[in-house]
Amino acid sequence: MKDKVKIIEVFENEYIERDYEITHTASEFTSVCPKTGQPDFGTITIEYTPDILCIELKSLKLYLNSYRNEGIYYESVTNKILDDLVEACHPRFMRVVAEFKTRGGISSVIEAAYESDEFDTDDLF
Amino acid sequence: MKDKVKIIEVFENEYIERDYEITHTASEFTSVCPKTGQPDFGTITIEYTPDILCIELKSLKLYLNSYRNEGIYYESVTNKILDDLVEACHPRFMRVVAEFKTRGGISSVIEAAYESDEFDTDDLF
Amino acid sequence: MKDKVKIIEVFENEYIERDYEITHTASEFTSVCPKTGQPDFGTITIEYTPDILCIELKSLKLYLNSYRNEGIYYESVTNKILDDLVEACHPRFMRVVAEFKTRGGISSVIEAAYESDEFDTDDLF
Amino acid sequence: MKDKVKIIEVFENEYIERDYEITHTASEFTSVCPKTGQPDFGTITIEYTPDILCIELKSLKLYLNSYRNEGIYYESVTNKILDDLVEACHPRFMRVVAEFKTRGGISSVIEAAYESDEFDTDDLF
Amino acid sequence: MKDKVKIIEVFENEYIERDYEITHTASEFTSVCPKTGQPDFGTITIEYTPDILCIELKSLKLYLNSYRNEGIYYESVTNKILDDLVEACHPRFMRVVAEFKTRGGISSVIEAAYESDEFDTDDLF
Amino acid sequence: MKDKVKIIEVFENEYIERDYEITHTASEFTSVCPKTGQPDFGTITIEYTPDILCIELKSLKLYLNSYRNEGIYYESVTNKILDDLVEACHPRFMRVVAEFKTRGGISSVIEAAYESDEFDTDDLF
Amino acid sequence: MKDKVKIIEVFENEYIERDYEITHTASEFTSVCPKTGQPDFGTITIEYTPDILCIELKSLKLYLNSYRNEGIYYESVTNKILDDLVEACHPRFMRVVAEFKTRGGISSVIEAAYESDEFDTDDLF
Amino acid sequence: MKDKVKIIEVFENEYIERDYEITHTASEFTSVCPKTGQPDFGTITIEYTPDILCIELKSLKLYLNSYRNEGIYYESVTNKILDDLVEACHPRFMRVVAEFKTRGGISSVIEAAYESDEFDTDDLF
Amino acid sequence: MKDKVKIIEVFENEYIERDYEITHTASEFTSVCPKTGQPDFGTITIEYTPDILCIELKSLKLYLNSYRNEGIYYESVTNKILDDLVEACHPRFMRVVAEFKTRGGISSVIEAAYESDEFDTDDLF
Amino acid sequence: MKDKVKIIEVFENEYIERDYEITHTASEFTSVCPKTGQPDFGTITIEYTPDILCIELKSLKLYLNSYRNEGIYYESVTNKILDDLVEACHPRFMRVVAEFKTRGGISSVIEAAYESDEFDTDDLF
Repeated sequence: MKDKVKIIEVFENEYIERDYEITHTASEFTSVCPKTGQPDFGTITIEYTPDILCIELKSLKLYLNSYRNEGIYYESVTNKILDDLVEACHPRFMRVVAEFKTRGGISSVIEAAYESDEFDTDDLF
Repeated sequence: MKDKVKIIEVFENEYIERDYEITHTASEFTSVCPKTGQPDFGTITIEYTPDILCIELKSLKLYLNSYRNEGIYYESVTNKILDDLVEACHPRFMRVVAEFKTRGGISSVIEAAYESDEFDTDDLF
Repeated sequence: MKDKVKIIEVFENEYIERDYEITHTASEFTSVCPKTGQPDFGTITIEYTPDILCIELKSLKLYLNSYRNEGIYYESVTNKILDDLVEACHPRFMRVVAEFKTRGGISSVIEAAYESDEFDTDDLF
Repeated sequence: MKDKVKIIEVFENEYIERDYEITHTASEFTSVCPKTGQPDFGTITIEYTPDILCIELKSLKLYLNSYRNEGIYYESVTNKILDDLVEACHPRFMRVVAEFKTRGGISSVIEAAYESDEFDTDDLF
Repeated sequence: MKDKVKIIEVFENEYIERDYEITHTASEFTSVCPKTGQPDFGTITIEYTPDILCIELKSLKLYLNSYRNEGIYYESVTNKILDDLVEACHPRFMRVVAEFKTRGGISSVIEAAYESDEFDTDDLF
Repeated sequence: MKDKVKIIEVFENEYIERDYEITHTASEFTSVCPKTGQPDFGTITIEYTPDILCIELKSLKLYLNSYRNEGIYYESVTNKILDDLVEACHPRFMRVVAEFKTRGGISSVIEAAYESDEFDTDDLF
Repeated sequence: MKDKVKIIEVFENEYIERDYEITHTASEFTSVCPKTGQPDFGTITIEYTPDILCIELKSLKLYLNSYRNEGIYYESVTNKILDDLVEACHPRFMRVVAEFKTRGGISSVIEAAYESDEFDTDDLF
Repeated sequence: MKDKVKIIEVFENEYIERDYEITHTASEFTSVCPKTGQPDFGTITIEYTPDILCIELKSLKLYLNSYRNEGIYYESVTNKILDDLVEACHPRFMRVVAEFKTRGGISSVIEAAYESDEFDTDDLF
Repeated sequence: MKDKVKIIEVFENEYIERDYEITHTASEFTSVCPKTGQPDFGTITIEYTPDILCIELKSLKLYLNSYRNEGIYYESVTNKILDDLVEACHPRFMRVVAEFKTRGGISSVIEAAYESDEFDTDDLF
Repeated sequence: MKDKVKIIEVFENEYIERDYEITHTASEFTSVCPKTGQPDFGTITIEYTPDILCIELKSLKLYLNSYRNEGIYYESVTNKILDDLVEACHPRFMRVVAEFKTRGGISSVIEAAYESDEFDTDDLF
């Protein structure tokens, strides 16, 4: 699972002097519960302020699809997606929200964020 | 009702260095009105920032199910769930919201929160 | 479980000469899965054309509440409720629809109806 | 309660040669439960094909308001409204639907209709 | 108010051999209550199967706008629109539905239809 | 109307050391317009942080029902409910929101709040 | 158009010592586009904290109705309503939001506010 | 515009012995108004029972995209799509519904259907 | 793919003398596009009137999950699920509806049904 | 693509002494993906506080329509619209939000803002 980050492609941010926000919402995420082997389904939302690199959309889709048959917990997959995307595009700010469908009458949302050292979210409009 | 807290199981938080947020929403909560003996129905939402422990999802379900035949008031059950979960996982921050279905034309929501001494919610993204 | 029907009370239909329709929707039904012991939750809708007797609403609520700790399958509980209510009020027509909440990503609806011999639903407006 | 029908005013139908449909929906109906003295709330829908008379809207509102402090059952009020309005305007066809708000977790709908002898609903578009 | 029909323009139906359906929904209709002088607001839906003529959309808008300061009852305006449009385009079938916003807690819908002699709605798909 | 406050019953707050929030929403409020005598309908939401007393739910319902035949303006009833409930339970904080149904095409919301001297809402989570 | 402000009537605020909020939403506003002569439709929301005067609801309706046949731009009508209402009732704070229906695929919202010199919105709960 | 039908590709229906229904909904259709040159936007729904051929999905998308810069009326485009698709796949039954976004406060829906001679829609489940 | 039908387990229908309806909705179906290798997502609804056998819910889930990594077209998977379930439980009537998420701006629904020879759907209530 | 800004027309702001907010939402934006040549669809929301100039609505529509056959990336089009509109009307504050429809299961939102040097958004109500 280490090498997934290589799937992500980036392109140059043309508006580097401006702090703006990009949000991608992937409503067809699926992975496998490591305990029961049953599939999990969810929606992954990625919100970020690019620095010099933006995430290429098609590679993001392939990256998310690569979890299809992986056994991984809710908490881990959310944090790992954040770590991988930060490593790939070094954003000024990034948040990942993973909303999982109901299991046994309980639905879950995991939300994690990253902020680069030189960046202050209070600067965001 | 004292020993309910023992039902809750925890597991180690793998991303201890990051303040992130976990939300579990259980829409099938039911208990009994201590006055009338009639069943109450509601949705319990638990939102927390883990410290070194996370709440195991299946045990959370069993814990909430254990109230099925207990006579307990809205205000008490909300505060007791918060106290039990804080005791079980010592989170940096936790909020419990209990939304109860209409009784006699009135629906009720109870919301209570806990914050550990070393933690400042303003640090949350 | 045989004697549940005794809980249901009836009252005289004042408008016996007219075929009209009564629908009661109970959104807080709960019983127990006989296999796993886990609670099931659902909405029971009862639609009927009374003959000489109507179902008393409060007793209907107590009747439905009496399944709270019974282990019974979806298909059985729907047909049993229909049989019990027909036995209690001898309607011209009755339909019971039971909609159960998602279990393992699948939600279920069971729908059963009864029509008395002298009655033709085509007569209904 | 007998004289309520006198509140209803009518006016001449200008398009008597055409079977057309008028629907009035009053979402602010309230009466009193004859058993408990507690208020009931609901929506009354009146759908009709006029013959030579139409129901005047403001008088309909006053007629429905007149139930505000009357103790009357769901089934009775629905059938009585139908009887009163038929008496007042002699329509070709009329249906009254009364939807009552949740009481003890159960909501109820009562639906009753009238068809004049010379009229066949199959003639309706 | 007689000459309003002259506002409506028509164009030739290119698919005369096929019974198909056109629906126009105008959600910004307003006229004036002839009794109180207060404005009424509603949505007019026109559904028709053209014969050799179709209604031109911009002229339909002007036709409906022409009621803006006219004092006219709900029942009359619905039937008059139907009569005017039938006169203008001689459709095989036409239905007009007028939904008026709440007045004194009561909303109203008037629905009227026309069918040409040689046409049978049962032929419609 | 002075003595309405006596209808409200209170019970002891078991979790006095914690600032938590209770919200009751009564969607079946009705009073009478003092000018026209026509009924008004609305939803009353009461949100408070208890100090040593909580409001008993059934008495709250009876208190709200007591306005059924009172002639009172929107602005007055909202402020009076706030004053009465503050007098009855001395909360740390309380807000009353009254949403009234459309009259003559205009719907209204009145919102008033109370904060005890020793309490700072910024302390609320 | 100057004299419209005279239509607005006011009454004395009974709860002058408390900063509370009144919101009136009029969903049936219509005026005329000064350029094309075509009608515009929208919803006007007026939110204010009264000082010693409140706006009388029926006169507000007549005031808004008075724009029915006026040619006026979106930006102007919003600011003019704000100016007129401030002149009529001298509120501590007032905001007017005008939401206009889609024209050529574009819908528009204009929002303007007034704050009296002695008032600080941060004092609002 | 004649040759558009050549864009549509078909594939063999594997379940030829069964009358079943396929529905494709394309919510991103756009063409140009032949009168004003302004773009029109809509949703095209195609519902059919295949005979020996099914419509290939990607070619359907390209076929619909080919109208992007064509000037064509609502009524014409709906009937032309039906004619083209019938020519391409000779279905047992086909219906095309085109829903166009609001222009000047009026939205429009055009619905046309085709049935092959040997086929009777009453045979459909 | 032939042997998937063996996954499906059945149990005896206790109410064999009554024609009633069972509907299971699985909103988490996923398979793979045989052309592009990309995942497809959809909701499968199974509606049937049992004869002597009912479908066991957990085995149905496993049966549907078994398509997770299969390359199969929309039309084929819908018809195959129908064939497999009919083979497994010999129902009086069964309908399968498969709703697939948007691909390239087009969403698709496939609906197929089976009726046993001795059964007439007109007998269904 | 440079000259698009010339399409935008402006008019004088009549309420220059007040900081107020104008929001235009264009739900029918379409451009072309520069990579695949396939059309993209979205909603563009423009929110601004005018200084001495306002954007004329019809020219804004023509400006947005001018992207119909341009190949341009999501990130670029959002920032370019912001730059062009700022150049045209020199607002005190402006934000552009572009929400694009789902492609390959992922929908995207891009949000960028501009603030003039003499302006502080904290001054906004």
